[in-house]
Amino acid sequence: MYDVVIVGSGPGGYETAFKLKNLSKSVCLIEKSELGGTCLNRGCIPTKTMITAAKRFKELNSLKRYGITLENISFDYPVFRKFQKSVISRLRKGLTNSLVSKGVDLLQGEAKILDDQTIIVNEKIKFDNLVIATGSRPFIPKAWKANKKVIDAEDLWSLEEIPKTIAIIGGGVIGCEYASMLASLDYKVSLFEKMDTLLSFEEPEISESILKELRAQGVTVMLGTTVEIDSLEEDLIICAMGRIKNIEGFEDIIENKNVFLAGDVKGGFQLAHKAYFDAEQLANIFANKKISLADSTNIPAVIFTNPEISRVGLRAREITKVKQVKVHFAEVAKAVAENVAKGFILMNIKEEDNNRIVGMSILGSYAGELNSTAQLIIKNKMTVNDLKETVFSHPTISEIFKIAAERV
Amino acid sequence: MYDVVIVGSGPGGYETAFKLKNLSKSVCLIEKSELGGTCLNRGCIPTKTMITAAKRFKELNSLKRYGITLENISFDYPVFRKFQKSVISRLRKGLTNSLVSKGVDLLQGEAKILDDQTIIVNEKIKFDNLVIATGSRPFIPKAWKANKKVIDAEDLWSLEEIPKTIAIIGGGVIGCEYASMLASLDYKVSLFEKMDTLLSFEEPEISESILKELRAQGVTVMLGTTVEIDSLEEDLIICAMGRIKNIEGFEDIIENKNVFLAGDVKGGFQLAHKAYFDAEQLANIFANKKISLADSTNIPAVIFTNPEISRVGLRAREITKVKQVKVHFAEVAKAVAENVAKGFILMNIKEEDNNRIVGMSILGSYAGELNSTAQLIIKNKMTVNDLKETVFSHPTISEIFKIAAERV
Repeated sequence: MYDVVIVGSGPGGYETAFKLKNLSKSVCLIEKSELGGTCLNRGCIPTKTMITAAKRFKELNSLKRYGITLENISFDYPVFRKFQKSVISRLRKGLTNSLVSKGVDLLQGEAKILDDQTIIVNEKIKFDNLVIATGSRPFIPKAWKANKKVIDAEDLWSLEEIPKTIAIIGGGVIGCEYASMLASLDYKVSLFEKMDTLLSFEEPEISESILKELRAQGVTVMLGTTVEIDSLEEDLIICAMGRIKNIEGFEDIIENKNVFLAGDVKGGFQLAHKAYFDAEQLANIFANKKISLADSTNIPAVIFTNPEISRVGLRAREITKVKQVKVHFAEVAKAVAENVAKGFILMNIKEEDNNRIVGMSILGSYAGELNSTAQLIIKNKMTVNDLKETVFSHPTISEIFKIAAERV
Repeated sequence: MYDVVIVGSGPGGYETAFKLKNLSKSVCLIEKSELGGTCLNRGCIPTKTMITAAKRFKELNSLKRYGITLENISFDYPVFRKFQKSVISRLRKGLTNSLVSKGVDLLQGEAKILDDQTIIVNEKIKFDNLVIATGSRPFIPKAWKANKKVIDAEDLWSLEEIPKTIAIIGGGVIGCEYASMLASLDYKVSLFEKMDTLLSFEEPEISESILKELRAQGVTVMLGTTVEIDSLEEDLIICAMGRIKNIEGFEDIIENKNVFLAGDVKGGFQLAHKAYFDAEQLANIFANKKISLADSTNIPAVIFTNPEISRVGLRAREITKVKQVKVHFAEVAKAVAENVAKGFILMNIKEEDNNRIVGMSILGSYAGELNSTAQLIIKNKMTVNDLKETVFSHPTISEIFKIAAERV
């Protein structure tokens, strides 16, 4: 009899396991495939590894002005894949060791619910509480599955070679990340989105800029377009039309008092760190702590296009009487010195609340890391004046926050 | 008659000018050389531009594992210099435009004090208040000046070519930055430091690590060594033994009630953002605001070696009963995916003060930008628990802060 059995070892599963071990619970973590879930094995990590390759490859074009010359540049996908696999296996090994040394029992196999205290994975396992962290999977329209050129985004990693012409269906986070990544590596990419804007959930200026950037990088972007899949001439069609929850087999018990959800299967943002947040909230429940829901409005998000996009807090459309300040990377000395002067920050300020900073969006180099500074500005409810009084190192790109505050 | 005359147009001077114009003062800014001072023309900006070249050049060695191959890599210093000059002139133009559009009167020439309300720059200029922001200059021992191979760090930018073998005297910030930069670009560098540690003011583990890193990059580091300058066989000797204040000609008036100092000439950290901080404090005086001195202990610092070093708040040696947590970059998924897994963070925690985080040092990629997140953790007096409750995006290197908090 375990205090808690967790099904699924992605971010929601493993993070819940860590947190519950901190509370000295007995924990069994069940995984039917590979430890680490989508994020580590088929999502964030393999993607970001290839995005790093893409970014470095693309940067080579701008080295000439620094006096650096090179010849015969080429990208060899099979060599890259080997490295990518080594990154995944290194991180998976680290995760496994951490779980084992924390005293989490790991179990390999498909889990099946027997009753409200029993799950079967080869043998019967008893639990007081169950956490379902089974994640999500890519959605592909049924009719498309007959077309052999169609794959989902995760399938890319099982190809031996990537063909030279690629159509991507869906201009959301994954569609844009893949388009940017593959175009940077000199693949010929077409991106189709049925709405008339990419990343429609972002600030409009962000959506417009990434559209221009992708087009400048050679991506053929078709907006407001419903695709006839069989008429596409590209050699590969990547379907990036969203994800569906892996809830099958658990539908009957999710209302039970001793059953909890974490990660993608719970709903909300499909982000690893949202799953961490769910795990934190679950740990609070098990520790009988009051749950603070304040933070749930403060889940940051990063889109690893080139340039990167990040956002935290509220968008302008969510605020009444918002004051929005824009500062371009080109106004920041370090960005000019590093030749990464594309992009801008949008700072949303609530004037009637003492000029409090309530939301920020960034498009530009390092936006993912800069977003953590933005996150702390929002989380600590800093005002424009607080930010003016903060000393940021010169020359850094982070000075952009202060420049924005000075401009209000 | 000006409300305020400012001598020197570096960060201390121009930032004071901006802030005083915000208070609607009449301001005259005097510069004997080029607008922007040491930082823009001979310091931070030219250095960081070359450090970017060095970093990109060095990164080329690690591209092979990403499947990226190249041939015939070379670095052409004159080509680089042209770009470097364009960066400086672009930023100088931006600064000039900003000052002019703010209504600052710019005056070119050497300033000479006549009396406590008059300064001469070709003509007599009357002032109510005077701000001396004349900066500092590199120190070279008198006896060394006869040796034609000896230059200071700023002189590097006036060389047509950089010779292949270089000795650097002084293992402080500038010495280490130059050693790392030049070694990365395949120059043969020897670094001499008379103390038995580099960067003695940093946490000991940081000093030890950068020593190992520089040696691994091919720098010959000699510690505890007093140099016989004439016995050195290197073709170029860069003296990086500190800087002296440009106070000559102003000694008699600095005690006057209407005279103020800002930047390097004032003393304290020789950092552009310390000069900004001085400017902020001066603006508070002119606005009759109470000056908060709390922040003056919170000046962040970045050393742009490869890998970068940053620090904010207190070092372990400055805290009684400190708890120090160390997390390696190798434990952060994004750092592994980006192949920047060298380095670590040191987090200093005051247990008796509710586990408040009071200082952090970072050695690793992006340390300069990560330091802004560290800065806000310190500034907002966040505790380990506050940090545990903060959601950072996955995968980012910023997750290292949360990992550190979880480890306490």
